[in-house]
Amino acid sequence: MKKRVAVVGATGIAGQQFLLALDRHPWFEVAALAASERSADKTYGEAIRDSKTGARRWWCNEEPPESMLDLRVRNAAHLDLDGIDIVFSAVESDVARELEPRYAKTTPVISNASAFRYEDSGLLDLQRRRRGWRGFITPLPNCTTIGLVIALKPLYDSFGIRRCLMTSMQGISGAGRSPGVVALDIVDNVIPYIHGEEEKVAKETGKILGHLVEGGIDPAPFPVSATCTRAAVLEGHTESVALSTERPCSVDEAKQAMREFGRDLAKLALPSAPRQMIIVHDDPFRPQPRLDRDVDGGMATSVGRVRADHALENGLKFMLVSHNTKMGAAKGAVLVAEQLTVGGYI
Amino acid sequence: MKKRVAVVGATGIAGQQFLLALDRHPWFEVAALAASERSADKTYGEAIRDSKTGARRWWCNEEPPESMLDLRVRNAAHLDLDGIDIVFSAVESDVARELEPRYAKTTPVISNASAFRYEDSGLLDLQRRRRGWRGFITPLPNCTTIGLVIALKPLYDSFGIRRCLMTSMQGISGAGRSPGVVALDIVDNVIPYIHGEEEKVAKETGKILGHLVEGGIDPAPFPVSATCTRAAVLEGHTESVALSTERPCSVDEAKQAMREFGRDLAKLALPSAPRQMIIVHDDPFRPQPRLDRDVDGGMATSVGRVRADHALENGLKFMLVSHNTKMGAAKGAVLVAEQLTVGGYI
Amino acid sequence: MKKRVAVVGATGIAGQQFLLALDRHPWFEVAALAASERSADKTYGEAIRDSKTGARRWWCNEEPPESMLDLRVRNAAHLDLDGIDIVFSAVESDVARELEPRYAKTTPVISNASAFRYEDSGLLDLQRRRRGWRGFITPLPNCTTIGLVIALKPLYDSFGIRRCLMTSMQGISGAGRSPGVVALDIVDNVIPYIHGEEEKVAKETGKILGHLVEGGIDPAPFPVSATCTRAAVLEGHTESVALSTERPCSVDEAKQAMREFGRDLAKLALPSAPRQMIIVHDDPFRPQPRLDRDVDGGMATSVGRVRADHALENGLKFMLVSHNTKMGAAKGAVLVAEQLTVGGYI
Amino acid sequence: MKKRVAVVGATGIAGQQFLLALDRHPWFEVAALAASERSADKTYGEAIRDSKTGARRWWCNEEPPESMLDLRVRNAAHLDLDGIDIVFSAVESDVARELEPRYAKTTPVISNASAFRYEDSGLLDLQRRRRGWRGFITPLPNCTTIGLVIALKPLYDSFGIRRCLMTSMQGISGAGRSPGVVALDIVDNVIPYIHGEEEKVAKETGKILGHLVEGGIDPAPFPVSATCTRAAVLEGHTESVALSTERPCSVDEAKQAMREFGRDLAKLALPSAPRQMIIVHDDPFRPQPRLDRDVDGGMATSVGRVRADHALENGLKFMLVSHNTKMGAAKGAVLVAEQLTVGGYI
Repeated sequence: MKKRVAVVGATGIAGQQFLLALDRHPWFEVAALAASERSADKTYGEAIRDSKTGARRWWCNEEPPESMLDLRVRNAAHLDLDGIDIVFSAVESDVARELEPRYAKTTPVISNASAFRYEDSGLLDLQRRRRGWRGFITPLPNCTTIGLVIALKPLYDSFGIRRCLMTSMQGISGAGRSPGVVALDIVDNVIPYIHGEEEKVAKETGKILGHLVEGGIDPAPFPVSATCTRAAVLEGHTESVALSTERPCSVDEAKQAMREFGRDLAKLALPSAPRQMIIVHDDPFRPQPRLDRDVDGGMATSVGRVRADHALENGLKFMLVSHNTKMGAAKGAVLVAEQLTVGGYI
Repeated sequence: MKKRVAVVGATGIAGQQFLLALDRHPWFEVAALAASERSADKTYGEAIRDSKTGARRWWCNEEPPESMLDLRVRNAAHLDLDGIDIVFSAVESDVARELEPRYAKTTPVISNASAFRYEDSGLLDLQRRRRGWRGFITPLPNCTTIGLVIALKPLYDSFGIRRCLMTSMQGISGAGRSPGVVALDIVDNVIPYIHGEEEKVAKETGKILGHLVEGGIDPAPFPVSATCTRAAVLEGHTESVALSTERPCSVDEAKQAMREFGRDLAKLALPSAPRQMIIVHDDPFRPQPRLDRDVDGGMATSVGRVRADHALENGLKFMLVSHNTKMGAAKGAVLVAEQLTVGGYI
Repeated sequence: MKKRVAVVGATGIAGQQFLLALDRHPWFEVAALAASERSADKTYGEAIRDSKTGARRWWCNEEPPESMLDLRVRNAAHLDLDGIDIVFSAVESDVARELEPRYAKTTPVISNASAFRYEDSGLLDLQRRRRGWRGFITPLPNCTTIGLVIALKPLYDSFGIRRCLMTSMQGISGAGRSPGVVALDIVDNVIPYIHGEEEKVAKETGKILGHLVEGGIDPAPFPVSATCTRAAVLEGHTESVALSTERPCSVDEAKQAMREFGRDLAKLALPSAPRQMIIVHDDPFRPQPRLDRDVDGGMATSVGRVRADHALENGLKFMLVSHNTKMGAAKGAVLVAEQLTVGGYI
Repeated sequence: MKKRVAVVGATGIAGQQFLLALDRHPWFEVAALAASERSADKTYGEAIRDSKTGARRWWCNEEPPESMLDLRVRNAAHLDLDGIDIVFSAVESDVARELEPRYAKTTPVISNASAFRYEDSGLLDLQRRRRGWRGFITPLPNCTTIGLVIALKPLYDSFGIRRCLMTSMQGISGAGRSPGVVALDIVDNVIPYIHGEEEKVAKETGKILGHLVEGGIDPAPFPVSATCTRAAVLEGHTESVALSTERPCSVDEAKQAMREFGRDLAKLALPSAPRQMIIVHDDPFRPQPRLDRDVDGGMATSVGRVRADHALENGLKFMLVSHNTKMGAAKGAVLVAEQLTVGGYI
């Protein structure tokens, strides 16, 4: 029998991506949609219809799943979670801070917001014990961090990392649409700054590559220097990465470690997992965001241009592309839910 | 009396930029235009008219200088340089390799091609002596290098540089138009590789920041690791730069050194020189290629986001924007010619 | 002595364009800036500084006029117009509806809002008489209409027009930035609809080409069928126009009529008027918005591809480009003020 | 047993689209690939590898079918068609003019070139009889015409058409990549002219909607006035269409006729046919090329904004989007081959 899930914040772009990521999912079925009071009690189809212009306010390239158009939207502020096994939450951080702990009292919450990102969030048992919750909140990493940590993880495990520098050219969709990136700012342009992003990447990378210790996480000890920019690309984050390894690592060794990475995960056969976590290209013109973001349903990280970096000791550099709204958001969240299900947490 | 100049390769985009850079120049007048045999003996206006469609094959945003439309185009292969003081050459590298040494026998050549870029080209007296030329060839730096060396020079002079990493997001116009960047490749995309560019940046940066020694140039001794990508930006190269200085250098010291750089040049009052070599922004959203490339006629280098880089020892990082077809090409070439004129070489 | 002008709504993008259009104007000087209460009593430089990120919220490509950064911004709701000769108003329609009539009691108002666009607005004396105002409100035409009526006017005057069809590809800046066009909607796309725009074009074209009658305007009697779309172009509206003339009109006659149009205006030597109202291209690849929008300071209308339309009786078709935020907004408003000044209304 | 097909011009972008359109096709299998002498005798994988940069010269978003990488490419000039049932030809017009008649002596040819487009090409029996061929050449319509005639056909059949005006905003991919549209020309721009395109649309529309008469085709008798422009859109042609019907036709009648169109074709259950020929939107913001081009595998024509056109007698107007390289090229060609197969011509 399928797990019953609720999607909260279902009318925004992040919520819509959840609906697509969950459409016809073999393990999960969408049993409840919730949004703000304005949408409450309308059908989903009505809730995303603009009464002034007649436009459908649906923001994804794929059409909305037919089956969800007739579901009635509930008020997120008074959502009854009886019979719900998982909540996927796509509300803004300030709303998340209020609603998600309330949901977590009874039900596991997979959260797209940054609100709880720095609370030792992987530590589900700790959360439950400390707070007396039956559920928990699992925040997702920032969409710029996820591709980076996937590419770094096999190198870190095999060779150690002493320092890492990264410059991103991020897709527009990372900023959402309220208003997100304004077209006047990005056509024929690069925006050299994304407020708060560089600190997030540095902090989360250390945390995700860290290890559990009594009472928390001991972050990976190497510094990450990120420069985050916005490019005129719809979706997909491109990152130029340079790093020093602790122990010498040839280009071939690095490629091999990346290609082998994630085989254990692959054995679990999770519905949303990519067949290969990292696809390593030898063609120097790859990866490109438009060509590589959608590989394997947007769940694989594409790496290319792996080469020595002569400006760093044991230097290595490469480019990567990761899909910020698939692996980096909704589908990544569903993958997390699948792992938690297999792990017995849900 | 004005110096008389010839523009060779005048019908291509780089040659057209020379025409604009020389239009109404106070010191130089365009006395001859040359191109391939196909254009020879036509007026310039006829030479850039497509007979099939009636289109004008003029590629710059500014209209062609009226005064040049009636000049008769000569055959570059048989160009008579009698009465010509300077040749601005905008031909492709293979043609440059044949024609430019021929011109240089009698006349100074400022060359946009990479053909002679690694021949200790600054060393004009050396060229003359070794080759028995009366003229010489001055190659221009690669358009990606020029902004980088301008930004590095004041830091290198004051604090020393131990290593430098740079990721560029380069404008489309850097690739010219034969065919240059194909639109299908760059809309909604980043291209992670520009063939040969990274090696050029590393080599030229060392050379330009090096110093003259007996018989050549001793390059600056620090490694430059460049990753060169193409972005959906018409003009202007954006670069994310990280470096280690030899001696500690605070963010404020770095900004001050950059702001003060080039005062000596400013005193020369060269017609094409920017009022300020480097414009340092405090607004974190600057520089942006669309907003900053044209500052001061495209001749200033704009720097922003100067901050410490915690992943490097004495680490510093910043973003820069430089106009690749103005300072990085035609107008930069005219500035070089102005310097050579003041220096008595022309 | 210069006329003293106030700019209301000075911190928004339309207001900023007014500041640029008025910078160093030979007849007008900016004596007062006004905006919402949030900006009141700050200097203009402070008012456009984002306190959270340090960014300057200035949206035009040209930098803000230095002289205005230290002006103190007043509260538009309580603006004292003593000593002010003209108000340029760039506030939103709902605010315009409240504030502009209040200003107009004493002072002429040139308004960028559509609030009063259909009130027989050219009829300044009528306004004054009917309402007992000493001032008046002059609304500007919609930015899509202005290029169209300029191109149609000489044809209408010489040959009559029986019907007109127009499809526009409008620049992004026409939508402003609050939020204006969202980047996710327009990269690699065309948006086939602009709410309300087509009706405005039809109505205003008739009105502007109409003639004064007792008590109002008798609109030009031909139907205008507009299809208004948004293209991935920063600035400049491109329009594909087809029309039937009343009397036969050859392609050459049409071109000549357009080229001759506006000679009377040129004789007035108004500071903001283009040297030529309409520039007619023979090159079939022109006009293009990127190449032609800025011609003559963005004040000329560029027309090309004039040819017979065999699907219409006495059919003629052509393409035009008009700068929507220069001739179509702020600079157009200043031109109107100049005309009113010469006409003795100000 | 599957029909055996050859793809000629297999290394170019149009040929690559054929390979994708034929990949795992239930009726056809690719038995031979041919290209110019330069690629002959290489495997397909080798033939599309750039030896200088290591790049794969494959231009489609989907990866090349694995099964074709090891096929050996033959020289198109000496292609042996023994055992081949159909040739799909994607060579340039001048090569087509030489090779295709040679192939057609023995084998049906579906041609992407315009070389034979005006030769009463639908008239296969006529071709055979007149020329003594056993095969024939079926040219495909121009990619801009195909969407237009699909949308016009149901209106023409039910209400008659008196005149039609169309302005297109065409995708970049329509120009191919040798060099196709140069990026410098289209970013932040619209190109108002596509050489030869408007005449093709007018001529082919008449011909396709015409009817067979003794010895040829009698074209549909109404004039088509096309204005063809290029927009910054990767794929998908958007068209703004206005027309006069012979007999009055309400908006609802027009929508219904379009929605019902193609039911007969649907009954044939051809593998490449869309489930619905025309998808009619009520949302005024549709169709958009990015959202609608790929609907139903790029084979459906999307129509929206159907409304009365008050400038024309019995006037109707609408927008359409059609995928220029799917329905408008390779997949459309395969659909034609499927129809010919069902019709017994192959």
